[in-house]
Amino acid sequence: MRNIKLTLAYDGTDFHGWQTQPGQSTIQSALTEVIERITQERLTIHAAGRTDAGVHALGQTAHFRTQSALSPEEFQRALNALLPREIRVVAAEGVAPDFHARWHALAKTYCYRFYRGRVLPPFLWRYVLHDPFPLDFDAMSEAARLFEGQHDFTSFAASTGSEDDDRDRNVERSIFRSEILRGDDQNLPAAAFATLGIARPGPEEWVYVVRGRSFLRYMVRKLSGTLIDVGRGRLSPADVTELFALRDRSRSGPTLPPQGLFLVSVEYPDAAVSLEPAA
Amino acid sequence: MRNIKLTLAYDGTDFHGWQTQPGQSTIQSALTEVIERITQERLTIHAAGRTDAGVHALGQTAHFRTQSALSPEEFQRALNALLPREIRVVAAEGVAPDFHARWHALAKTYCYRFYRGRVLPPFLWRYVLHDPFPLDFDAMSEAARLFEGQHDFTSFAASTGSEDDDRDRNVERSIFRSEILRGDDQNLPAAAFATLGIARPGPEEWVYVVRGRSFLRYMVRKLSGTLIDVGRGRLSPADVTELFALRDRSRSGPTLPPQGLFLVSVEYPDAAVSLEPAA
Repeated sequence: MRNIKLTLAYDGTDFHGWQTQPGQSTIQSALTEVIERITQERLTIHAAGRTDAGVHALGQTAHFRTQSALSPEEFQRALNALLPREIRVVAAEGVAPDFHARWHALAKTYCYRFYRGRVLPPFLWRYVLHDPFPLDFDAMSEAARLFEGQHDFTSFAASTGSEDDDRDRNVERSIFRSEILRGDDQNLPAAAFATLGIARPGPEEWVYVVRGRSFLRYMVRKLSGTLIDVGRGRLSPADVTELFALRDRSRSGPTLPPQGLFLVSVEYPDAAVSLEPAA
Repeated sequence: MRNIKLTLAYDGTDFHGWQTQPGQSTIQSALTEVIERITQERLTIHAAGRTDAGVHALGQTAHFRTQSALSPEEFQRALNALLPREIRVVAAEGVAPDFHARWHALAKTYCYRFYRGRVLPPFLWRYVLHDPFPLDFDAMSEAARLFEGQHDFTSFAASTGSEDDDRDRNVERSIFRSEILRGDDQNLPAAAFATLGIARPGPEEWVYVVRGRSFLRYMVRKLSGTLIDVGRGRLSPADVTELFALRDRSRSGPTLPPQGLFLVSVEYPDAAVSLEPAA
């Protein structure tokens, strides 16, 4: 039995999210169908994060176990030949037999893209939230930093469930980086965008970047909506600190629509991925 | 009677080109329908270039004459509120009564985008031609320069018709700039991209840029296909020079598919646009 890890990019616009649902077009069902066609096996493909309907990925990861003799490179080529062009296998590799895309993830990075220009280019509506209205960037920047650290994120999540595990009742989450970047900021080092795996955003774009161990359901979209409320002056950065203690999701900002959200990358410990036994 | 000039961006993927055709969804018919709904008039909207099915625009221009009292800014807002999000009015201005978007155009710039990476990102398939195979960039660059100047472009056009006027039998065209740019060329000055109205292309992209007085039908797609043939070694730059004299379109490269092609901008003499009488 071999274990194959895939790195996936997808345009989530026309999919009902990652997870297979009867009668719905999902990323997981599209992948499962094609892999089962290639391997002539019944199998399950597990993703690091179960993205919601309309959410995109630049570097989702997933794994599946197979008896197939195909090399990872052959899997990549065959999958890209058979999958819809909205889903691409960016990389494929053989990994340790017990590697699990969800359980071994050390960190995930998401970004949420805002288009600040007056007229939304026709090439971007699938990939950004259009918000041309005045926003206090400095206040948003200050509030974004307050999400860093370990906190109870009840105020910033859906009423139930977690992106990682619906049965998970723990609402503490560790956020390693929470930062909002302006595309027109010439002083930003290229390194600020390095983990995004994307080129520098256009000058009219703001990008909220958040990296953490794991996230509650809708959490990134609700953090982004809270930053918008701060930018508009409806909440202050100090209110954000209070919201951790309040544990009241009706007081934080709205859950923003899915099209601006990208799962950028997932990080693993080398030992989990390596095919060689640890020394 | 007022004359309104529009600058338009559109995603041509799901349209059968600019020109109204019975039973087809086109840019011209979408615009005409919305402008007639706003003005309650019957009118005709004329574009600088009649883009083909699947071709995009960053800066197409068009004009229409109306008795409406709406200001250009009000037209822009109303149109963007009612048009599908694949078509955006980037700018609207009142222009001289006899301004004509097609007849007064001094120059048009097109670009054709190639994606050179091995895996085509799911966000780009509508906007690039994916060509990950070896290409001799220097030979293509040399050949591209040979298109500059005034030439008989019979070998580089469709069998009939012109983008500007189907009745135009003149096959001489003046090309002011013909250049291929690499996204990963760090030495390229920002000015090289300035007329493109777009941010620097990604490092995996090559962009062919051509600026000329006017173009024959399919000409930019056939010039681009000829450059690909040069890049593959099927044609040499010297062959390109011979093709002008041969007047044989079977010897040049293929007409590339529409999705990589963008009408970038259209230039006019100030006097044609100005609402003030010339001094």
